[in-house]
Parts: sequence; C-alpha cells; structure tokens
Amino acid sequence: MTDLVITSASNPRLKQLVSLQRRRVRDELRVTLLEGYDELALALDAGVQLRTLYYCPELMLDAGEQGALVDRLRGDHIETVRLSRAAFEKVAYREGADGFLGVAPVPGAALADLQLPDAPLLLVAEGIEKPGNLGAMLRTADAAGVDAVVAADAVTDWGNPNVVRGSKGTVFSVPVASASADEALDHLQRKGIRVVATTPDTDLLHTEADLTGPVAIAVGTEKYGLTGDFLARADVRVRIPMVGHANSLNVSTSAAIVLYEAVRQRSAR
Amino acid sequence: MTDLVITSASNPRLKQLVSLQRRRVRDELRVTLLEGYDELALALDAGVQLRTLYYCPELMLDAGEQGALVDRLRGDHIETVRLSRAAFEKVAYREGADGFLGVAPVPGAALADLQLPDAPLLLVAEGIEKPGNLGAMLRTADAAGVDAVVAADAVTDWGNPNVVRGSKGTVFSVPVASASADEALDHLQRKGIRVVATTPDTDLLHTEADLTGPVAIAVGTEKYGLTGDFLARADVRVRIPMVGHANSLNVSTSAAIVLYEAVRQRSAR
Repeated sequence: MTDLVITSASNPRLKQLVSLQRRRVRDELRVTLLEGYDELALALDAGVQLRTLYYCPELMLDAGEQGALVDRLRGDHIETVRLSRAAFEKVAYREGADGFLGVAPVPGAALADLQLPDAPLLLVAEGIEKPGNLGAMLRTADAAGVDAVVAADAVTDWGNPNVVRGSKGTVFSVPVASASADEALDHLQRKGIRVVATTPDTDLLHTEADLTGPVAIAVGTEKYGLTGDFLARADVRVRIPMVGHANSLNVSTSAAIVLYEAVRQRSAR
Repeated sequence: MTDLVITSASNPRLKQLVSLQRRRVRDELRVTLLEGYDELALALDAGVQLRTLYYCPELMLDAGEQGALVDRLRGDHIETVRLSRAAFEKVAYREGADGFLGVAPVPGAALADLQLPDAPLLLVAEGIEKPGNLGAMLRTADAAGVDAVVAADAVTDWGNPNVVRGSKGTVFSVPVASASADEALDHLQRKGIRVVATTPDTDLLHTEADLTGPVAIAVGTEKYGLTGDFLARADVRVRIPMVGHANSLNVSTSAAIVLYEAVRQRSAR
C-alpha cells in the first residue's frame, strides 16, 4: 500500500536504472524503458506488463489525471516507486521529463514461439538500422493487421527505447521476433509461407504479384535494400513503380505500400 | 576564377549566413540553406539553382571527389566562397560538418503558377507541423509521379532546412506551392480537380473510390487530421482500413498508401 520512496540521487537502484540506457545491460536483463505519460499510456493500452513504474508527482503535468494512472497500476499489483525531483531527473533520458518512467520486459519472442493463424501476413525487415523506421513499420503493421513482424539480422533491437517510442506502443501489441536472415528464411520455408522480396531490380510490380495466402513481405536496409542471399531465396521479387528523381522510397514507406496492397487483395476475396 | 576567401569568423557575411537559420530571415530573403555534400548533390540532381556555395576543403571527407563539385559549380558560374575551418564551423548548423553549405532560392510557386497536365494527381497536406513528415511526403510524391504538392495552412514552410533535408532534394524536383486551405479548395474547384479527403470518419475505403482523372489527395495534421471545413468541401471522403490498437497511421504513411492506390488505378487504364 505504501510505495517505496527514493529521495537520494545516489541511491544504487537509480544507478541500475540509468544503466538500462545501454543496450548490453537491457539485453542481459531482458527489459526495456518507457518514458513519459503518453508513451506509457499507449503501451498499457497495447497490453504491456510493466515490471516497475517510477514516478515523480512534482514533475507531472496534471497530477490529478496522471496520478490516477499510478493508482491504477498500484491496484494491479505493479511495483510503484516514488522519486524526488532530483532523483527522477537523474534517471530520465528524454528532454522535458514529465515524471513517468516504466521498466517492462523486452518485447519479442523466438521465431518458433510466434503464434500464427492459417494464412498469415508477415513483415520481415532485414538489417534495419534506424529505430524510427522500425517504429514506423510497427505502427503500419498494427493498422494493417499484420500477424507478426520479424527483424532479420537486426542492427537495432526491439527493446531500443526509440523503437518503443516510435511504435506508439504497438511494439507490445504486434507479435515481434528476431532471427538471423537464414533462420528466418528457413522458418518461413518450413511453415509454407511465401517470401515476397521488395527490390528495384525486377520487372514484376507489387500490384501484379499474388499477395493472398500465407505471405511474408520482406524489405531491406535503408541504404542497400535486401541482401543478395535474401533475394536469391525469396519466392517472388516485386518492385514498387517509381518515376522520380530520388531513387528510393523510405523503407517504412515501401513496407506500407506493399502491406496495404496485400490488405486490398486479401479483403477482395 | 579566384574564389572569395573568408578566414575570419567575425566576417559580416558569415553573420548574415547564420541569420538564415531563422525562418523570418529566410522568408524575407526568399532563400533556404542546404548543408552537407550528399544533400547538395541530391538537390543539384533535382535541378536546384544554387545562389552561393560556401565550402571548406579542410573539412571535406574526400577533397578529390567532393572538390570536383566545387569546380563544376564554379564552371557553371555559381558563386563559390572558400571558408577557413573556424569560419565554416561558425556557419554550420548540423553536427559533423563536412565543408559544404549552399544557399538556394526557397522552393515553391504560387498556386496559380503551378503548371499542371490535363488530368493531374496532386497531394494536398493541411496544417502539417513536422518537417520530417513534409520531407517524407515529398519523397513519396516524387516516386509516385505526383504533379504537385500543396501545403494548405502550412505551419512549416517549404524552405525549412529540415524539410529540404528530409526530402532528399525532391523539394526542388516536385512542384510545390503554399496557400490557405480556402484558397487551395477554391483553386482546385475552379480547375475541376476532385478533392479526395482522407479521414477515419467515413465508410468508403480508399480502394473503393475512383482515383483516376484530375484528383487531389488531401491529408491533415498529425494530431487532428483534416479540419471540418476541409472535409465539408471535399468531393469524396475515404478511409484507410485499420484494425490495430493505435488509432492512426503516420500522416506521411497515409499519404503514401492512398497515392500508390491512385498510381495502381491510373496505370490499370
């Protein structure tokens, strides 16, 4: 009933919390960070199971409405820890700290543990570096009803706080997994899921390919697209028609265009 | 033949250059800034007419290949001004300055001056705030062959250096204009261009509407979508199907999905 209160900025628990800003520590402990009321509220809506909520009433923009979130989590038996302003400012990693910082299990399952329906629609993103692009793809995957997003040979991990933020919480609602490119291709092949690779080097348009049935849409890195190995093992290669001066769409835009063509084809059935 | 050389960081010309980082000054002088070799190269490919190039050989990553760009511009009778390292670092506004900074006329025409083909495809973006979103929409518009992009009641101007950067130079290849929402709607109506407004509050899917012929796809602000006035005056309202937890796609993603549905319909003819 009574929260743990930390007022000293040199408390060892705060030191551990700050250490979670490093990927190595997050990977070891299998947790990620969520900062800010809006981001926490979106993640909770999406079903995240918080481990601990750190909060600071003095920093809240609206202690009434926002304080209610603390009460709700406490009622759900989530650990809630109150911090002094000095203590909170030590652990906050974003500008304009608003008194909310959560620790949650890192999102993502093993490939083999993904629960997929009969004719799933997947998105496979190979080698993506920018957290903002992974976050944007998750928002689109959520809206399009994608059954899982697989990061192949990921440079950025699902627990990266900027992925969590960019995804508007959807990293906790869309099933996600990580694997090497080979593992991902092996798994999809075994499951009978056709791999549709997007690349500029083909004549077949994405609107001309059959995107119904069990399908995984694959997109590649921001700079170089899908690797040669991936392209060689894909079942179909498609391109998005482009007429302009710049030679490539943003990777998350490409993913959205092909995923929504799949949605169109699949709903027409 | 011989370039002006500025070695003193207190040179008054540099002071004026720094002042261009403020929108008010850019608006008055009708110019914008392009920083970095890659960004400049993309803009030049897209057809930008540089006023002045400021360069610093000591900061270049590859004085051979990159220096050739300076020679080429000088040959094209563009003013080229060489800066000392200290002088360049004073005017650079991005991290990791690489010795290239250009001044170019601000992109954008008056609505009435846009040259449009017979059955044009336009994108109208109302009230967009984030430069990154405007930049992303321009890249998509360029790839999709959109005939013009109109910013209605723009919060962010086309000359914002972050729009220029995010657009990968396409702000100089895609015809762009700014106007109030009313002016834009009046103009489109007069020209016989149907306005297709995207909104969650309708039953008609974007794939069910006719997007052939003279059409302007309209998207609204990041937070609130299109204003009521805009929706009321649109010819058709369409929605993108969404099934997920988050309640909205990113605005540039929405624009890409509807524009590419238009491309699909128009090429099927």
